[in-house]
Amino acid sequence: MSKNQERIILVTNDDGITAKGISALIEIAKEFGRVVVVAPDKAQSAMGHAITINQPLRLTEAHIFEGVEAYACSGTPVDCVKLAIDKVLHRKPDLCLSGINHGSNASINVIYSGTLSAAMEASLQHIPAIGFSLVDYHYDADMSAAQHFGRQIIEQMLTKGVPQYHLLNVNVPTLPIEKIKGIRICRQALQSKWVESFDERQDPQGRNYYWLTGDFLTEDETPDTDLWALHHGYVSVVPVQHDLTAYDDIQFLNNNWQL
Amino acid sequence: MSKNQERIILVTNDDGITAKGISALIEIAKEFGRVVVVAPDKAQSAMGHAITINQPLRLTEAHIFEGVEAYACSGTPVDCVKLAIDKVLHRKPDLCLSGINHGSNASINVIYSGTLSAAMEASLQHIPAIGFSLVDYHYDADMSAAQHFGRQIIEQMLTKGVPQYHLLNVNVPTLPIEKIKGIRICRQALQSKWVESFDERQDPQGRNYYWLTGDFLTEDETPDTDLWALHHGYVSVVPVQHDLTAYDDIQFLNNNWQL
Repeated sequence: MSKNQERIILVTNDDGITAKGISALIEIAKEFGRVVVVAPDKAQSAMGHAITINQPLRLTEAHIFEGVEAYACSGTPVDCVKLAIDKVLHRKPDLCLSGINHGSNASINVIYSGTLSAAMEASLQHIPAIGFSLVDYHYDADMSAAQHFGRQIIEQMLTKGVPQYHLLNVNVPTLPIEKIKGIRICRQALQSKWVESFDERQDPQGRNYYWLTGDFLTEDETPDTDLWALHHGYVSVVPVQHDLTAYDDIQFLNNNWQL
Repeated sequence: MSKNQERIILVTNDDGITAKGISALIEIAKEFGRVVVVAPDKAQSAMGHAITINQPLRLTEAHIFEGVEAYACSGTPVDCVKLAIDKVLHRKPDLCLSGINHGSNASINVIYSGTLSAAMEASLQHIPAIGFSLVDYHYDADMSAAQHFGRQIIEQMLTKGVPQYHLLNVNVPTLPIEKIKGIRICRQALQSKWVESFDERQDPQGRNYYWLTGDFLTEDETPDTDLWALHHGYVSVVPVQHDLTAYDDIQFLNNNWQL
């Protein structure tokens, strides 16, 4: 594909502007248009769809990516997208890419993920948007398979699109390119959750503090789910909507509740 | 309803443990069981489903509610629910109530709302959960109508329930009780969004900073939506699910994308 200088691609993430994953994403994004980066100045993992309303935000030009306009933002991933549109681009970008996240955002992680929330924010503003994650939490993870399949997905997004400005949640298994069997369109695995057990510790003053830790459990791994795809060597692509209404419950409540 | 001392009700919010809304919610929750409060020690509005993984959390006993065990937590609303279960209750509560939020969480606000995310977290753990919001941002808002209808909704939740542990998003219009026409089961209004215009200011050192401001726009106000209900004097109740998959898109992508 020839480089289109008119197409503006906003790149952000939630691991922060210095993470390896965003560099890898910028590298492939540059093949599709002019890249502008607005990303958190520090790790903002698990920030969900948080926005900053009680504090001012800072935006600092970052000269770290060869030939790419980039800004570090003091806010959350969603703040980055909002600020990018209003104060950096002064228009909507043609595409918003978020990631490549260091770690899985499959299944219910879509709700906690700052990576996905940034893409969600863009899609709410009718900007085609994709969140990319590699199922490998290592800071120096090998991003080449995610780049390889990411390229294919970006190309399809730009040529074929997704209905109703829904976003895509893309997860890539921790495998070398040649071991990955392909790309599967999936649904979000359900009945999965993080089961917490907080570490209880004492500070030097003898006061307790708690540190979140937990295990991811799932009971839904049928072949149409993202978790199944990842565990069987496929890249998973889940189309994600903005409507959280449980439609089937409306009739139940109207029939059974006495209001 | 007779007071059931065996039923444990976890109460939290996102406006912080000293907000008027949580006091109002505790007041009615006490009629249904033993209340335990774990709520943020400061305002955590718009925190979405953020969780705290890069910092330790603090939990401080708060002697501010007559006869009610309460803790202020340094984390987000979702952190409060997780910590409450693991370190305060050492079991799941029988009901989780979040709010009463000072301000609307109708429509797309469900995604940004810390109030709703706390309830979402509980529902993911199969705890019946309701997020309550009053469409009035004033810190001293009159909570009596929200309490009145909240009581009815809690009673139905405890006796009739909601399928599949879905949570409820309840919004109450800013009207006196006698002006409210009733309770409507609704869907989330779509095609709504916040349109931002950041205030650009300069600090005493002459450096720019930005402060989020914005207008809420909606293009979907048919009579089955929560926004319609609120604008026409009804309390809105939206059942909310955990599955964000855009199912109709799966076929589109399989048919049209070349992967």
